[in-house]
Amino acid sequence: MILVLAGGVGAARFIEGLVQVVPPETITAVVNTGDDMELHGLKISPDLDIVTCTLADLIDREQGWGIIGDTDECMSWLVKLGGPGWFKLGDRDLALHIRRTAMLREGRTLSEVADSFRQALGVAVRIMPMSDDPVPTHILTDAGEMHFEEYFVRHRAQNEVRGVRYVGVGKARPAPGLLELIATAEVILIAPSNPVVSVGPILAIPGVREAIMASPAPVVTVSPIVGGAAIKGPAAPLMRAVGLEVSAVGAAKAYAGLLDGIVIDQVDAHLAQQIEALGVRVAVTDTIMRGPAEKANLARVALQLAEARPAAV
Amino acid sequence: MILVLAGGVGAARFIEGLVQVVPPETITAVVNTGDDMELHGLKISPDLDIVTCTLADLIDREQGWGIIGDTDECMSWLVKLGGPGWFKLGDRDLALHIRRTAMLREGRTLSEVADSFRQALGVAVRIMPMSDDPVPTHILTDAGEMHFEEYFVRHRAQNEVRGVRYVGVGKARPAPGLLELIATAEVILIAPSNPVVSVGPILAIPGVREAIMASPAPVVTVSPIVGGAAIKGPAAPLMRAVGLEVSAVGAAKAYAGLLDGIVIDQVDAHLAQQIEALGVRVAVTDTIMRGPAEKANLARVALQLAEARPAAV
Repeated sequence: MILVLAGGVGAARFIEGLVQVVPPETITAVVNTGDDMELHGLKISPDLDIVTCTLADLIDREQGWGIIGDTDECMSWLVKLGGPGWFKLGDRDLALHIRRTAMLREGRTLSEVADSFRQALGVAVRIMPMSDDPVPTHILTDAGEMHFEEYFVRHRAQNEVRGVRYVGVGKARPAPGLLELIATAEVILIAPSNPVVSVGPILAIPGVREAIMASPAPVVTVSPIVGGAAIKGPAAPLMRAVGLEVSAVGAAKAYAGLLDGIVIDQVDAHLAQQIEALGVRVAVTDTIMRGPAEKANLARVALQLAEARPAAV
Repeated sequence: MILVLAGGVGAARFIEGLVQVVPPETITAVVNTGDDMELHGLKISPDLDIVTCTLADLIDREQGWGIIGDTDECMSWLVKLGGPGWFKLGDRDLALHIRRTAMLREGRTLSEVADSFRQALGVAVRIMPMSDDPVPTHILTDAGEMHFEEYFVRHRAQNEVRGVRYVGVGKARPAPGLLELIATAEVILIAPSNPVVSVGPILAIPGVREAIMASPAPVVTVSPIVGGAAIKGPAAPLMRAVGLEVSAVGAAKAYAGLLDGIVIDQVDAHLAQQIEALGVRVAVTDTIMRGPAEKANLARVALQLAEARPAAV
């Protein structure tokens, strides 16, 4: 069984590679819910929806998020009626939020909702949130503390970042079954996601980091930083804010003490020695996932790197 | 000031006539909320939305409900995700339900929501719910007790009707300001709406019937029954179930003790004498509201009938 710690777009694409090289039923994605928020009274789970809809082949691939061919009739009326308009929600997309909100209000858990959605949309990969408890990621900025999506979408990542808070993480419990999955996984992959606001929240859930360290499974990541810049999203300012250099070396250091291997891009090959000095094995390949072939190759390289390490004693 | 007790489609069309003959700012519509329900976790107020969107000239006139040009992307996905599909909600339409639900959850009242919506959509007529408290109308049928919309939409009014319940009406309070509006109204019009499930719930709110009886304003209705059949909707079986004959006479009797006058259709002219014997004045005209001219005429006739009665002592 392969466990993938996942953020949004990068993780979804990485898992699209994995399903080409191993049976999808053997993969479980544990997805960040730090970006989750409530808007228009609806529970929004951006990363869960991106992963689910990408694997269902329903994603708007140009954006990386949202549903292909979606329209914005409802959104434009929500704004007309005085609702907030800074976070776009397509008409089809809204169905996910409406249904999730209804199910949660009926007493179902976010794990149950996530599983119900991926089944309804025909996704064979198991998808679970990191926790059924809300752990919103807040960004501390020069303009005050704000939810990650407010920082990222509403203010277009223009504020200076001073720190990051996973609000309420101390009391959050791992999603049901997550610790057992970690303990019994054959491989644990950390997707090429933002280490601070995508993977960071997952690892901050009490018990998760410890379970990964205790697991015999090799832990391998793919650097989301290529040539000193993030492939997508605001990794650079966020990594800097928590004292990580914006490089493949920084990506490896983000998982210090956890990592057995990291896949880095060819343009970063010169950093391999520096990373290996941290006790982390390195594989070098093309990590930009342009299409199915690149995705499958990246998955293959990551799995090979994992298998190169015999299970820990 | 003109107060209109209103259901959905028929009432909305009637008020469209009124605004042609008196300034819209002088009209207040008190709208039935007995059809209100929660679906997909969203608060649906069918009659409030029909009245508001009709007066905003945004209604789908062929259906009488729903928003013109609306699409059903969200609905089809809600069903795909396992949500109930028997009550169609368009994408634009959903914005009303989402925003209403969010505002109610934030602590706003339904009256505030209704006023906010009509202002946002540019409606000059004041629109208020009969109550801020939920009073769902249940239909007692041969297949058990069910919400009115389940009876009407889900089961297409096919069940035998045995009775009607306004659930929780005993504890419902009139919407803020409603009793004062009744007391100070110059005319009270009862729209050509279903007397049992549209106007009945309004009159059943404690204090409303008493206030109307105490008000010096003349009370005039338009018969929703023409030639022994309802113009629209399930008035016939519901009137029969509560012991009213399905005729203009039955429509007058539905408001026994309240009514000063009733406008009936030309095809029912032969019933005038029978109605006048109940102590109710009658005006006869074409009551089918095919277009703006018929609507304006009907409003004019109703107002003339009201004015023919000097304010009560």
